[in-house]
Amino acid sequence: MRKFILYSREGYTSPFKESLLKAGRLDTVYQCILTSMFTSHAIRRENEFHAFLYGRPSPPMHLSIDGSTLFDVRVDEDTWRSIILKVLSGETHPGVSLKKEGIETYAEGLKEIYILSENGVNIDEVEFGDSPAFFLGDSVGLPKKFEGLLVRLGGKKVSIGRKRYLAASTIDIVNYLIDRKESD
Amino acid sequence: MRKFILYSREGYTSPFKESLLKAGRLDTVYQCILTSMFTSHAIRRENEFHAFLYGRPSPPMHLSIDGSTLFDVRVDEDTWRSIILKVLSGETHPGVSLKKEGIETYAEGLKEIYILSENGVNIDEVEFGDSPAFFLGDSVGLPKKFEGLLVRLGGKKVSIGRKRYLAASTIDIVNYLIDRKESD
Repeated sequence: MRKFILYSREGYTSPFKESLLKAGRLDTVYQCILTSMFTSHAIRRENEFHAFLYGRPSPPMHLSIDGSTLFDVRVDEDTWRSIILKVLSGETHPGVSLKKEGIETYAEGLKEIYILSENGVNIDEVEFGDSPAFFLGDSVGLPKKFEGLLVRLGGKKVSIGRKRYLAASTIDIVNYLIDRKESD
Repeated sequence: MRKFILYSREGYTSPFKESLLKAGRLDTVYQCILTSMFTSHAIRRENEFHAFLYGRPSPPMHLSIDGSTLFDVRVDEDTWRSIILKVLSGETHPGVSLKKEGIETYAEGLKEIYILSENGVNIDEVEFGDSPAFFLGDSVGLPKKFEGLLVRLGGKKVSIGRKRYLAASTIDIVNYLIDRKESD
């Protein structure tokens, strides 16, 4: 089981009329859902995606997607805008949930923490356990203070190289590298 | 320079009112543009993306994105829906162009062709030249007859593993593997 966790500095926390981009860069959240949860014609049943939204008006909010129960979804942004609006309005969708929780509280419950970072150890040299949790920043990156907490919780910095990829591309790359190890 | 080329069986070839998904799965085209052309806060200036649209009403159409001149863009689906509609309406956008051309004619002008395929040779064993062109199918895959043409043109089948990834994820993985080779 793999968990991908995105810190969204500005993601709106109540229903909105704007596009996902204008709603505090929720387009990044959508793109990460796409690459965390989908392969061609299939849902990654063993994956979870978590976004912690710190935008207006009522941060923090914890949006989570559970691949084991995710249902009735497509891969486009419009579909996910509707689903995000639905859960922000208090409605439910199979495999998608929303609750009032900060990222620190969530992190404290995890056993195997990784922080994607250019100056981490080469990801090829890491032996992952059964339930790795990968933390990613939005376009501004993770707040330093929170990165410090992750390190105190035993989090390891891992690197996929010098280039700075989109958060969604980083997830594609990590999924691929672990898929490859698992099929060896 | 890298070229990514997507065969879009149903992508609409004139302006539409629908979402990209409903316009013949143009959402796949958008997702491939995202992963072909963008890293964090930057455009991949050395990359090109080409989609060949075979949907109604006037196939084929060749939509191309040139990273070296691409300008005034964001990474979300809404932005790209507007740009695609603009060029389908005959207007221009920097780095984006549209012309009436079939994928066979385009392929015949290429020197270094790769076909992403589960039963190709392991991509790690391939030495890429200066200007590799990677062909990807939409959710249905490349038509067999066209794959045959690519092979006759010297195209090599390359594989990133057994799993069938989204076209956009495949592009992320190929970009990553070449980035990694280049930084060695």
